[in-house]
Amino acid sequence: MQEPDFGKRGGLVPAVAQDAETGQILMVAYMNREAWRHTLATRRATYWSTSRNALWVKGETSGHLQHVREILVDCDDDAVVLRIEQVGGVACHEGYASCFHRRVEDGTWRVIAPRLEPPSAG
Amino acid sequence: MQEPDFGKRGGLVPAVAQDAETGQILMVAYMNREAWRHTLATRRATYWSTSRNALWVKGETSGHLQHVREILVDCDDDAVVLRIEQVGGVACHEGYASCFHRRVEDGTWRVIAPRLEPPSAG
Repeated sequence: MQEPDFGKRGGLVPAVAQDAETGQILMVAYMNREAWRHTLATRRATYWSTSRNALWVKGETSGHLQHVREILVDCDDDAVVLRIEQVGGVACHEGYASCFHRRVEDGTWRVIAPRLEPPSAG
Repeated sequence: MQEPDFGKRGGLVPAVAQDAETGQILMVAYMNREAWRHTLATRRATYWSTSRNALWVKGETSGHLQHVREILVDCDDDAVVLRIEQVGGVACHEGYASCFHRRVEDGTWRVIAPRLEPPSAG
């Protein structure tokens, strides 16, 4: 079994969740080895919450699970892309389709997407 | 001027370079404040090389510059997406269009894209 190089940055690699159909980037989170193995075994995107220091099955509380269709690994083995199907169409705990719902314009952030739901626990 | 929260992870935030036309994810690198400001000022994707500990204007040596069309910031201010135009169509120093040219299949990596150029210094 090949695995990402978890030794480089304190045991974590960044994981980019991308909508498998549209290509939209939904979020960036982190995986440790436990999260990686849990993702492969369950096909549900599972991260390591760096704020809670705990395994984080995305959507376990909100219902907004991410079904993993495909996993890509970069040339240095230290970043991954999860091509996923986002249940409910909302990846962001603030109720947006994507966590990247703000664009830099003239040095400030401008919201460029509609809020689809009230903020939740994610 | 708003800026990402560089205080969270030792001064760095992950930056995802995405082809502005096709939506393909090309690479994941890191930015510190200097790289961020250089990117905004020049509209050329500029990262912080964590291996060389130096500012890294992507493509400065290879010619494979990334012209930044749009910058998105996530809900936590600690990850960014650069929507870019990749000069030469090759983002990966190994000569592939994308650094994410390998897919996880049955626990091993399989190359899923053609090598377009010999490996370079990136």
